[in-house]
Amino acid sequence: MTSTTPPEVAVHVESLIPKFQLTRLLNSDQAGRRISLLGTVDAQPALLIAERAAFDTTPALLQSFSTSLRNIKNLGANDIYAWFLANSDPSKENGNPPPDFKLNLIYPCTDKHVKKYTQQRLRVVTETPQIYAAYIRPYMRAQRDKGALDWIYNILEGRTEQEDVMYRESGDTGFLLLPDLNWDRKTMGSLHLLGIVERRDIWSVRDLTRDMVAWMTHMRDKMVQATVGLYPGIERDELKLYVHYQPTYYHFHIHIVHVSLEAGGTQATGKALGLENIISQLETMAPSSPSSDDSHPPGMHNASLTYHLGEQSDLWTKVYLPLKQGRQVNVDDF
Amino acid sequence: MTSTTPPEVAVHVESLIPKFQLTRLLNSDQAGRRISLLGTVDAQPALLIAERAAFDTTPALLQSFSTSLRNIKNLGANDIYAWFLANSDPSKENGNPPPDFKLNLIYPCTDKHVKKYTQQRLRVVTETPQIYAAYIRPYMRAQRDKGALDWIYNILEGRTEQEDVMYRESGDTGFLLLPDLNWDRKTMGSLHLLGIVERRDIWSVRDLTRDMVAWMTHMRDKMVQATVGLYPGIERDELKLYVHYQPTYYHFHIHIVHVSLEAGGTQATGKALGLENIISQLETMAPSSPSSDDSHPPGMHNASLTYHLGEQSDLWTKVYLPLKQGRQVNVDDF
Repeated sequence: MTSTTPPEVAVHVESLIPKFQLTRLLNSDQAGRRISLLGTVDAQPALLIAERAAFDTTPALLQSFSTSLRNIKNLGANDIYAWFLANSDPSKENGNPPPDFKLNLIYPCTDKHVKKYTQQRLRVVTETPQIYAAYIRPYMRAQRDKGALDWIYNILEGRTEQEDVMYRESGDTGFLLLPDLNWDRKTMGSLHLLGIVERRDIWSVRDLTRDMVAWMTHMRDKMVQATVGLYPGIERDELKLYVHYQPTYYHFHIHIVHVSLEAGGTQATGKALGLENIISQLETMAPSSPSSDDSHPPGMHNASLTYHLGEQSDLWTKVYLPLKQGRQVNVDDF
Repeated sequence: MTSTTPPEVAVHVESLIPKFQLTRLLNSDQAGRRISLLGTVDAQPALLIAERAAFDTTPALLQSFSTSLRNIKNLGANDIYAWFLANSDPSKENGNPPPDFKLNLIYPCTDKHVKKYTQQRLRVVTETPQIYAAYIRPYMRAQRDKGALDWIYNILEGRTEQEDVMYRESGDTGFLLLPDLNWDRKTMGSLHLLGIVERRDIWSVRDLTRDMVAWMTHMRDKMVQATVGLYPGIERDELKLYVHYQPTYYHFHIHIVHVSLEAGGTQATGKALGLENIISQLETMAPSSPSSDDSHPPGMHNASLTYHLGEQSDLWTKVYLPLKQGRQVNVDDF
């Protein structure tokens, strides 16, 4: 980052910063790592926007990183996981500066942890209806058969985690609301709930059909109503509902978030689909085939869905990489 | 953030951090503000994940923020805008620690700047085909009539910014590629181009119809081909294409990004729609009405689109807030 500013200009603008007098904080965003300050410089209005910088990853600095930390304060610990606040080597004469690092320690860790935290090359894939029917649906079935959904059935049937269930609605449009693991359960601006449907015949968005529009709309309304009922400070039009494709597990569930929740990769196109847009897409769908009747309504299984995958993921290594290379997909290997 | 860890556990896990011996850097993400380090603690494998913490926004600290900065180094300056690196008051005996703050100064600033950087309450709205036809399309027309697209026509017709045009294709599927303002024009992992179509009859995704699928697919292929031609280090399946709705300006353009570009609000559901998914949605659309023929093909004007708006935006104040309050929308006020 070499500056191209003439030196006299650089000196001048650098001298303005310490003259900045705060009027008020305008915003704190990017997960609190950016602040926008309104103030004055020489009695004229000025904005100072400060962001945490990227880490310097030169090897020498990384080598001494863990010993350069000061005021390490544990916040919690659970089994092999522990999390902390710390300072980046502040001067001792400053007393108690606010922490500027958050740390997670996983110890001892496994190869699976290493894989999860290693940078993955991502690939964009287009899942046509044919690829879905031939490979992805069998893959989903294999995951379900392995018992990957037992934890959900345990919650739905009241055997575990009942203390986390925030709302439960039974019947045709039955669902329950759970807090997402990443939500602190108190900050309304980052509210994040999961709406898990009771019925078990919908594995993913791919199973939604045009004849389910009324069911989806009704359930959507009930989920929104339940959420604003639980948190009266939130209005209906401050809630955003989306689903993941591919999802982490193959039992239909809806993410309900506050619209001001900082959008990261988890809400991005190529990963998330707006629930309302899916409903509208279904409503405007043509019959699957000219001869089709109501017993075979059109649905998301007729669409192509484009999304991205890590190169370490099973779907990439077992389905899309073989397809790209013209090799056979081994469905028995799922 | 009060810890619930038993004190003896806290002391133990805190003592582990300085014992961490680096093996290698696994990843640097969240715009470089998180690093994942693999290493050992007492000869067993361990992961240490460090993130920049949120700013402490207690008033006393904010008051002294600008004077607490050290080693302020200007990187660039242009008119009222200047940007810097700086340190958060490091100890002087440490020589030259790497900067941990990025700063932007806007001085003198205007009310418009203050509005832009002030936290806006967001609202989720559903734009039905009826709302689109009655209010949003007239709003778009008004913006276009005000000359808001002159800068695009200047580029398309070769009058300005020709040095920025990275690729140009003329004819039926004509378009040009420009670097997005936020791209540094060299980091491949954050590549961000804009594909601006030549034809002027498509104001937004709303004007795409089923009979344009072949045109869209062909142009998509050409844009991807041009991009990998310009940047041979990138493969086709590392590119993600999306459009914004609502877009910033009403002339159809496509965002072409590297799939590993950190996804922020600009790629989020409620703001961005995947181009391939739109193509598929159009392909599977039913006729607009039973009597419709090829001269009135179905299209995105038949769908409902749900997205979010800031309360300061014209569309909120002039259209959706009046609708919510049961007031009349004044189309002449656009």
